[in-house]
Amino acid sequence: MGSPVHRVSLGDTWSRQMHPDIESERYMQSFDVERLTNILDGGAQNTALRRKVESIIHSYPEFSCKDNYFMTQNERYKAAMRRAFHIRLIARRLGWLEDGRELGYAYRALSGDVALNIHRVFVRALRSLGSEEQIAKWDPLCKNIQIIATYAQTELGHGTYLQGLETEATYDAATQEFVIHSPTLTATKWWPGDLGRSATHALVQAQLICSGARRGMHAFIVPIRSLQDHTPLPGIIIGDIGPKMDFDQTDNGFLQLNHVRVPRENMLSRFAQVLPDGTYVKLGTAQSNYLPMVVVRVELLSGEILPILQKACVIAMRYSVIRRQSRLRPSDPEAKVLDYQTQQQKLFPQLAISYAFHFLAVSLLEFFQHSYTAILNQDFSFLPELHALSTGMKAMMSEFCTQGAEMCRRACGGHGYSKLSGLPSLVTKLSASCTYEGENTVLYLQVARCPAQRAADFLCPELYTTAWAHVAVRLIKDSVQHLQTLTQSGADQHEAWNQTTVIHLQAAKVHCYYVTVKGFTEALEKLENEPAIQQVLKRLCDLHAIHGILTNSGDFLHDAFLSGAQVDMARTAYLDLLRLIRKDAILLTDAFDFTDQCLNSALGCYDGNVYERLFQWAQKSPTNTQENPAYEEYIRPLLQSWRSKL
Amino acid sequence: MGSPVHRVSLGDTWSRQMHPDIESERYMQSFDVERLTNILDGGAQNTALRRKVESIIHSYPEFSCKDNYFMTQNERYKAAMRRAFHIRLIARRLGWLEDGRELGYAYRALSGDVALNIHRVFVRALRSLGSEEQIAKWDPLCKNIQIIATYAQTELGHGTYLQGLETEATYDAATQEFVIHSPTLTATKWWPGDLGRSATHALVQAQLICSGARRGMHAFIVPIRSLQDHTPLPGIIIGDIGPKMDFDQTDNGFLQLNHVRVPRENMLSRFAQVLPDGTYVKLGTAQSNYLPMVVVRVELLSGEILPILQKACVIAMRYSVIRRQSRLRPSDPEAKVLDYQTQQQKLFPQLAISYAFHFLAVSLLEFFQHSYTAILNQDFSFLPELHALSTGMKAMMSEFCTQGAEMCRRACGGHGYSKLSGLPSLVTKLSASCTYEGENTVLYLQVARCPAQRAADFLCPELYTTAWAHVAVRLIKDSVQHLQTLTQSGADQHEAWNQTTVIHLQAAKVHCYYVTVKGFTEALEKLENEPAIQQVLKRLCDLHAIHGILTNSGDFLHDAFLSGAQVDMARTAYLDLLRLIRKDAILLTDAFDFTDQCLNSALGCYDGNVYERLFQWAQKSPTNTQENPAYEEYIRPLLQSWRSKL
Repeated sequence: MGSPVHRVSLGDTWSRQMHPDIESERYMQSFDVERLTNILDGGAQNTALRRKVESIIHSYPEFSCKDNYFMTQNERYKAAMRRAFHIRLIARRLGWLEDGRELGYAYRALSGDVALNIHRVFVRALRSLGSEEQIAKWDPLCKNIQIIATYAQTELGHGTYLQGLETEATYDAATQEFVIHSPTLTATKWWPGDLGRSATHALVQAQLICSGARRGMHAFIVPIRSLQDHTPLPGIIIGDIGPKMDFDQTDNGFLQLNHVRVPRENMLSRFAQVLPDGTYVKLGTAQSNYLPMVVVRVELLSGEILPILQKACVIAMRYSVIRRQSRLRPSDPEAKVLDYQTQQQKLFPQLAISYAFHFLAVSLLEFFQHSYTAILNQDFSFLPELHALSTGMKAMMSEFCTQGAEMCRRACGGHGYSKLSGLPSLVTKLSASCTYEGENTVLYLQVARCPAQRAADFLCPELYTTAWAHVAVRLIKDSVQHLQTLTQSGADQHEAWNQTTVIHLQAAKVHCYYVTVKGFTEALEKLENEPAIQQVLKRLCDLHAIHGILTNSGDFLHDAFLSGAQVDMARTAYLDLLRLIRKDAILLTDAFDFTDQCLNSALGCYDGNVYERLFQWAQKSPTNTQENPAYEEYIRPLLQSWRSKL
Repeated sequence: MGSPVHRVSLGDTWSRQMHPDIESERYMQSFDVERLTNILDGGAQNTALRRKVESIIHSYPEFSCKDNYFMTQNERYKAAMRRAFHIRLIARRLGWLEDGRELGYAYRALSGDVALNIHRVFVRALRSLGSEEQIAKWDPLCKNIQIIATYAQTELGHGTYLQGLETEATYDAATQEFVIHSPTLTATKWWPGDLGRSATHALVQAQLICSGARRGMHAFIVPIRSLQDHTPLPGIIIGDIGPKMDFDQTDNGFLQLNHVRVPRENMLSRFAQVLPDGTYVKLGTAQSNYLPMVVVRVELLSGEILPILQKACVIAMRYSVIRRQSRLRPSDPEAKVLDYQTQQQKLFPQLAISYAFHFLAVSLLEFFQHSYTAILNQDFSFLPELHALSTGMKAMMSEFCTQGAEMCRRACGGHGYSKLSGLPSLVTKLSASCTYEGENTVLYLQVARCPAQRAADFLCPELYTTAWAHVAVRLIKDSVQHLQTLTQSGADQHEAWNQTTVIHLQAAKVHCYYVTVKGFTEALEKLENEPAIQQVLKRLCDLHAIHGILTNSGDFLHDAFLSGAQVDMARTAYLDLLRLIRKDAILLTDAFDFTDQCLNSALGCYDGNVYERLFQWAQKSPTNTQENPAYEEYIRPLLQSWRSKL
């Protein structure tokens, strides 16, 4: 039955005793929490290994994040660099492999609050776009940190539209070099992580110009800082982009290149080469360049985005069984806020999404690994689907996770606004990963009439999966039809596209939701040997599907696929589910098995001692430990100025 | 035609010339922007006065907010106190009255980034709850800043449920004093602004106990810090609650009281008194205590919440005509992002809400002023309606404004994540004002069938107002019916209430939306002498109503009040409106007439020189002006450790 010792490890006075209001939530367990944790980890061995790594990480004071909330941007950066430094020492000492599970678990334990993360993105890009020779040369330099590398794509004036990037790489056959140049202010590279103050090399995406022809975006390895003294190299203007909503620990930077020369070998050439005489040879498709982004995107989903929503759920759920407010009946004591239907409505759909997205991310990763190997071997048939799927899923997951984390934050009332709750930084981190771009993906699905007669019928995965499929198909057809109508009535096709994008977007979003519902039900089928866990997860799956139907009921009512009466039944089923999930809510969040250090939240610790911890943590704030900077200069003169008025 | 000089006043090099992409938006004006500004200000005289005050404020370097984004919490607090100090000097010198328009405009110019704001809340509460004698004694002390006062209600363990507050005030007839006491940790006052490091006095809400009986919450004036040296008085434990999502400038504090004695006269006694012998005399209703909150809430709507959404609209709209991305047609240059339907869909509903809520806030303020005077004269008949209305409108406006500002922030892509854009702080400020509590308000409305036949029919205020009224009534009836069904089937009435709150909430939200639609159409009717402005605002009103119908289409389709085909017509009308509003978008945001200083945004200045300003502002960040704190200790050893490995 789990390992409370593992979970409760802040070492403060309160952790020694559980708050009775959270202890009572764990008395009766309708399923084996430890077993569910193992399923989430992909096996009991993984759980054991993860906990071992977490124990190691948490045993070093160098890795502590507890003062994060009191630090300036400069201090956060230094602390993240300290962690990057020590994690490499430990990895070397313990023989952790660069792509091994141990390092992955270490990053999870540190919530990614480590410098040099983009160094890893560079390595991914190198392996995706580099020739075997280039990988053989640069990969060991990266592995030994002989260089610190970053990935520089986005520009001050240009983002997602890759073709619009302005940085140029002009081939000079005389010297066999590329001249990398920022022709305008808006061509300044802007945002790359680790660039502002750390990187020595950048993988620069630039317009290739050779033999007078523009060949589109290609990637070039450019040295930017001296390996001797870290000063910018000639022709390089570089710095930090300043304060952001979050990610203080990361030195997001800017980079201007003034006719900087790099050798011909520095253009990554797995899919395209420039021969010494300037001849351009294409080996891949135009889309090959997107491969590094696909890799990063897929890793982001399960590595960064989803755990943040899960943490927000843990914190909000635990706080909601400690916090008491108002009375359900006049004679009762004040009730736990989690017993209110409105609080359940806020939190349980987020919990359901946490699980739905977990299973989705697992299956996406499987599909990715299958197709990635093929692509590296010049089989590009999977690339369009992989690109569309990873884009759509990332857009949806980041949007839902951000909304969900913010919902969790608000569900904690005023305390959710305190940084000490951990929730503000979870929300602002997710906001960064959020993109509103959805991409249309067309799938052919079977249309069926809906057979729902009673509320209970809505708890049938086949029924609601069909309902979602129907709506996705209808909206896709609808968007195509709108486009055709406009073009047939004489509109220019580009104008027609722009005038119907709102409709296409709606269709894409519904399609993505359908994919999550389908993925969740398929994952449930595989759990037939775990009936207790299957049952509790099925409730979350039901809730996820039905909550989506109620939120988008107009789409289902539109063509009378569902009647108003059927939507009411769905609502009844939904409200019943809230009540059923209530009793397992804490256990379902315990199953994520985040350590207290990793949560770093005064509200969300395993022991439930919310108020003591919040009070104590506040005492350590610089606003309390430093003397009042305004008293002598402003407050005292204000308070005493009336004397002079007398 | 406006006063560009007034608007462009950052004094930097770029302000001298307009970016052509924003200049072209202002060539053809279909309405008089200056006239619309006057309407928003409530008259041309007000506009003139406001601009005069803004010029004064912006002429003092003491009031500059330009370094805000680079400051620590302690530095922000000190700067806010500096502004509080200087604004009082100026007000005295220029004879600005405490409740005069000038000070209001000054606070608007400073975006409320001033210390001692809760001092004003104390004064409001004093005037609402104090007897004439008490007002006569304390009001001048506050006015001359002989004391600095705050309002202490929320506790560490207790929020909106006023009856649950634990702080006690026990009357001691022997000494004619109240003994104010925090009996538990959770009774600690937590969150009051100006409390952490500034206030000398607090208005403490506490459970009155006299002659052995508990009499509910009452307000007590308690001295907390020495007027000599500002140290906490005996029995007072006090401090700052630490880092928050925003409001670094405010010293939100905590307060524990250990049997602190205050004289009998310190209980505010307009609506309740304790006689010397301990006899309790009630003069008002139980709800009188909520009056200060109603006052503050009404002021918040137009003074704090709405301007933030308006600013977010200004910034995002201006940036969206400078930012170019992708091509609408292959042969075109990259298009302004505001020309994309998806961008219009993100921003224009927020613009519509900015205007809808303006007119709503104006009419709410009128109703408030009418009823407040009555209440102070012991006529409580308006109080329940005023309370419900102010609660519902605040819940709705803060929710919509927060969502809207976040939508504006995301619509600016990566740059919206930079603090220098000004958008993150607008969003995190609004998050604080946001509450998810909606209150049910039952109104009787006429039900009518919907006569829509064509898309154009949806541009009829009578039609959509009726549609909203219908849905509000249906949902209200529905929620009442659910409650009855549950109680008739034997459920305990409190349990039945909890099991139907989700439905009640939905009804309340729809009702609130109905009120905004109705309020906007009524405001339009009054503009019959301004046909050009009436026309452009009517488009926003149409958009607001129809956007809500589409977002909640399930509610309209549910009982076939609208058919699927009619919803499609509404969508067509909606998409047409986006195109119509496009050409006035910049002018409609210019009309809010925020100065560049007040916007404090690298993306949102009047001149449109986005990229130059963003680049320049980033250079001033401490991450660029201070040397790399991690190089010697971590980066260099990392980069050179491979040598020892050789």
